[in-house]
Amino acid sequence: MVSVLVIYYTRGGKTKRMAEAVAEGVVSAGAEGSVKGVDYANMIDLTECDAVAFGSPNYFSYMAGDMKSFFDRGLGIRGRTEGKPAAAFTSGGGSSDTALASLERMIGAYRMVKAAEGIIQSGEMTEDILERCRAMGEALAKAAAERTAEPTN
Amino acid sequence: MVSVLVIYYTRGGKTKRMAEAVAEGVVSAGAEGSVKGVDYANMIDLTECDAVAFGSPNYFSYMAGDMKSFFDRGLGIRGRTEGKPAAAFTSGGGSSDTALASLERMIGAYRMVKAAEGIIQSGEMTEDILERCRAMGEALAKAAAERTAEPTN
Amino acid sequence: MVSVLVIYYTRGGKTKRMAEAVAEGVVSAGAEGSVKGVDYANMIDLTECDAVAFGSPNYFSYMAGDMKSFFDRGLGIRGRTEGKPAAAFTSGGGSSDTALASLERMIGAYRMVKAAEGIIQSGEMTEDILERCRAMGEALAKAAAERTAEPTN
Amino acid sequence: MVSVLVIYYTRGGKTKRMAEAVAEGVVSAGAEGSVKGVDYANMIDLTECDAVAFGSPNYFSYMAGDMKSFFDRGLGIRGRTEGKPAAAFTSGGGSSDTALASLERMIGAYRMVKAAEGIIQSGEMTEDILERCRAMGEALAKAAAERTAEPTN
Repeated sequence: MVSVLVIYYTRGGKTKRMAEAVAEGVVSAGAEGSVKGVDYANMIDLTECDAVAFGSPNYFSYMAGDMKSFFDRGLGIRGRTEGKPAAAFTSGGGSSDTALASLERMIGAYRMVKAAEGIIQSGEMTEDILERCRAMGEALAKAAAERTAEPTN
Repeated sequence: MVSVLVIYYTRGGKTKRMAEAVAEGVVSAGAEGSVKGVDYANMIDLTECDAVAFGSPNYFSYMAGDMKSFFDRGLGIRGRTEGKPAAAFTSGGGSSDTALASLERMIGAYRMVKAAEGIIQSGEMTEDILERCRAMGEALAKAAAERTAEPTN
Repeated sequence: MVSVLVIYYTRGGKTKRMAEAVAEGVVSAGAEGSVKGVDYANMIDLTECDAVAFGSPNYFSYMAGDMKSFFDRGLGIRGRTEGKPAAAFTSGGGSSDTALASLERMIGAYRMVKAAEGIIQSGEMTEDILERCRAMGEALAKAAAERTAEPTN
Repeated sequence: MVSVLVIYYTRGGKTKRMAEAVAEGVVSAGAEGSVKGVDYANMIDLTECDAVAFGSPNYFSYMAGDMKSFFDRGLGIRGRTEGKPAAAFTSGGGSSDTALASLERMIGAYRMVKAAEGIIQSGEMTEDILERCRAMGEALAKAAAERTAEPTN
């Protein structure tokens, strides 16, 4: 069974709720889904999962600094995540599109492959947003399964 | 005597050298200059100094994550730094101009006032860059002294 | 009205629940209570509140590293917290008494005054533990009010 | 050739000097030696090196919080470092023996094997201390080479 990891940063809890919805979507698609706060996620988690989602609130039109530090720490191992299906989501007011773009640029810098459209949450949490998070989880599970099934010889 | 603080993040040591050159410029202008790695700088340091410089390497076209976390932690106290003279510098290859821009946006977000042109270092460290750092320190010391001398009634 | 701040670190959420219970106790005693994850608490928060509680899970028989970093960053401002009422609580299995001791030593190192017995939670969360957290909040609110009422001349 | 990694935290630079001396000792023993600040070391670095040294200043009778956070992040991968030769060193005034003990407990918790006596530096840096650091590097290189040479069937 493929495994999909959701790495997130949260303060108020909204990004965590979105992370859990992504993991629910993963499970509903028959894969193994788990969530980890970025403060205790490490590079082995990132390299060993079959697909990954990143979630962060929007602070100063960018991902949270602690999330950025995670990517900074992995500078030297980017080759190992090449081709891994990935997706991103953000929460918070204001121009969350730049925060989402900051996460999606990391997906590119780590040579991962964007497997679902990014999600921008703002204002009150809605069931619609959570449903889109679940769909993101399903898409990641599917992309991971397809990639694992590819002949590698 | 006014005090100017230089807050920096470094890995290889280049940003630290630039930070120390800024502090030298502060001292040469007759003010008190000090440097602090961002991992042990705190919001009291930031609010109590009379002027401040921020230095970071360029990682992924942005300031280092640990530097971003510093600004994230101060989200609630931004009003207290209004009008404080500030400046920024970056080191490292590639498009350091976006990293510099990320620091200068923080100067704006914290309602500080840019008191010197930003400095972008790339490749080998040169005496010319260090000289510009010293000039930045002098400009900050001067701006801090002028601001302190203003009548406040 | 006096203000009491609860600074905590959490992964699974248990320490956060305890933090919120402490804040409930503060409010029930007629004071202002708030909680902050340690990743976005800063030294101004610590110096300006009238009393403080610290909560951390037990990792390797010590507080979480991110909580320790908070105290490391404040090394230079310890004189400003002298006499402030404080208390600590921990969650998690194993020898949480050493984790609690690590927090209570910080209370001493920052020259704060222990205003309530420490609480050690392990295994499943119980209503009894949460009740003790509320009592801690009440004790902190009371100690803060008494201290504020003291003649300072 | 075996590789030995030195992971350190520094503020004033003393622990970094010690880290570099350990790496010199590694190289003089014919192995590959490298140093990394803990803020950009990751779990892949730790699991893939053949031996490791940890260095930290003594803050509040314990390793630096940022070093502790590194170990906290690896909680789940401790089995992968079983048997790896390791050693620790500390700098700074006061009771650095408790800081050293905090690092050496991590060596045990990660099931690594202490391959050299710990080093406690205090006061001014001396050539004697740096010589002992070099000897630590040699001992780690030797232990790593012996372990790699062991038949594993």
